[in-house]
Amino acid sequence: MSNDLISEMERDAVYKTIYGRRDIRSLFKPDPIPSEVLARILLAAHHAGSVGYMQPWNFIVVEHEGLRQKVKESFERERGEAAMLFSEEKRMKYLSFKLEGILEAPVNLIVTSDSTRFGPQVIGRHSMPETHLYSTCCAIQNLWLAARAENIGVGWVSIVKREDIRAIFGVPPHITFVAYLCLGYVTHFPDQPDLERVGWGKRLPLEEFVYFDTWQGQPSESRKDLPQILRNDGAEA
Amino acid sequence: MSNDLISEMERDAVYKTIYGRRDIRSLFKPDPIPSEVLARILLAAHHAGSVGYMQPWNFIVVEHEGLRQKVKESFERERGEAAMLFSEEKRMKYLSFKLEGILEAPVNLIVTSDSTRFGPQVIGRHSMPETHLYSTCCAIQNLWLAARAENIGVGWVSIVKREDIRAIFGVPPHITFVAYLCLGYVTHFPDQPDLERVGWGKRLPLEEFVYFDTWQGQPSESRKDLPQILRNDGAEA
Repeated sequence: MSNDLISEMERDAVYKTIYGRRDIRSLFKPDPIPSEVLARILLAAHHAGSVGYMQPWNFIVVEHEGLRQKVKESFERERGEAAMLFSEEKRMKYLSFKLEGILEAPVNLIVTSDSTRFGPQVIGRHSMPETHLYSTCCAIQNLWLAARAENIGVGWVSIVKREDIRAIFGVPPHITFVAYLCLGYVTHFPDQPDLERVGWGKRLPLEEFVYFDTWQGQPSESRKDLPQILRNDGAEA
Repeated sequence: MSNDLISEMERDAVYKTIYGRRDIRSLFKPDPIPSEVLARILLAAHHAGSVGYMQPWNFIVVEHEGLRQKVKESFERERGEAAMLFSEEKRMKYLSFKLEGILEAPVNLIVTSDSTRFGPQVIGRHSMPETHLYSTCCAIQNLWLAARAENIGVGWVSIVKREDIRAIFGVPPHITFVAYLCLGYVTHFPDQPDLERVGWGKRLPLEEFVYFDTWQGQPSESRKDLPQILRNDGAEA
């Protein structure tokens, strides 16, 4: 099936999923995720491309209550520390946000990356050794979109201490901890990102961040229409 | 539209796209990519989630022949260097592979990440400052899947020197170069990854890389079925 052309209807389903994906923190329902569904989501991640076909990822499915409680404690400590870096006004706002669903989401998922998989000789990794991490992040986005296509929400918790995750779950030193994710069915998928809804940030106008041929370069004659299309479509999207 | 449920038919279109995505190096056609299509692909990237909603990415659309020639020269130098690290047998094989379509693909695209966007105070970046790179890679995977949904192939060239890219395109020091991509319509999308087809590597059995509750942990009673499902579905996929 993989070499089939994608129809317009199928293409639109992909865009609907990409535009409808959210970082979910507070809308989790306790309904369990069946293993069949979890397997499809993990296999979608596994079908990301990877530099030199090294497939550097591992996944830890975390459902144990006590372990999640420890992660929640790490989050609380880190959030308190990070809050001190904001001005007082911003700090109160920051502390009012719900930023994770560690205990409410029925499944937590740790994603790691193994830079040593297949030894030192991996095609394409000589010039940019960090690319194994990039591959693992591509796998995470596959997972996130597959979950959305299963109507399952995903929240990425980046307010945790790497050392805590390593200690709680016994992750060995040669493995990079990349992401702590919360997965579960949700009451609904909001129209906007949370931080936009609460007025913390807004979507940037993409046309200001696309250059041509060089950094800050302007479009040639044949691409003069692109910034305007980005502006219009971005406003609609 | 984003809060709609995804139907089974739409879900299957997403999986078809995820499974049918390839890293394309040698099947590019010279047909130009219309700006409307390129805009949709870039906007899909822009709709990735990002830590603290920082949207740290920039894109440089590269179509200038002379600039692409310089990138190709950087690739050739790096490939030669990397080849020396392989044993003689592997080296001949490695040098026989077509690993990029820099000059054949009508559009090259540089993706960068700006760790300074919005200043030092970004929600979620205190504990893991590298997360801006992870967000940018998620955007790249959105772009890759959107391109596939438009029946456009993408190849990620990681055999280039960061310093060369920086110099050729004038990328400033505070910006991280993340990816050099080649985009174009293709003769077809192969069933298998290139490195699998030529016998360099094979897809790993995912069930060996999924753990439960701790590193190398075995499944609890309620997830005992998951490894078997992964094994079966992986064999089909």
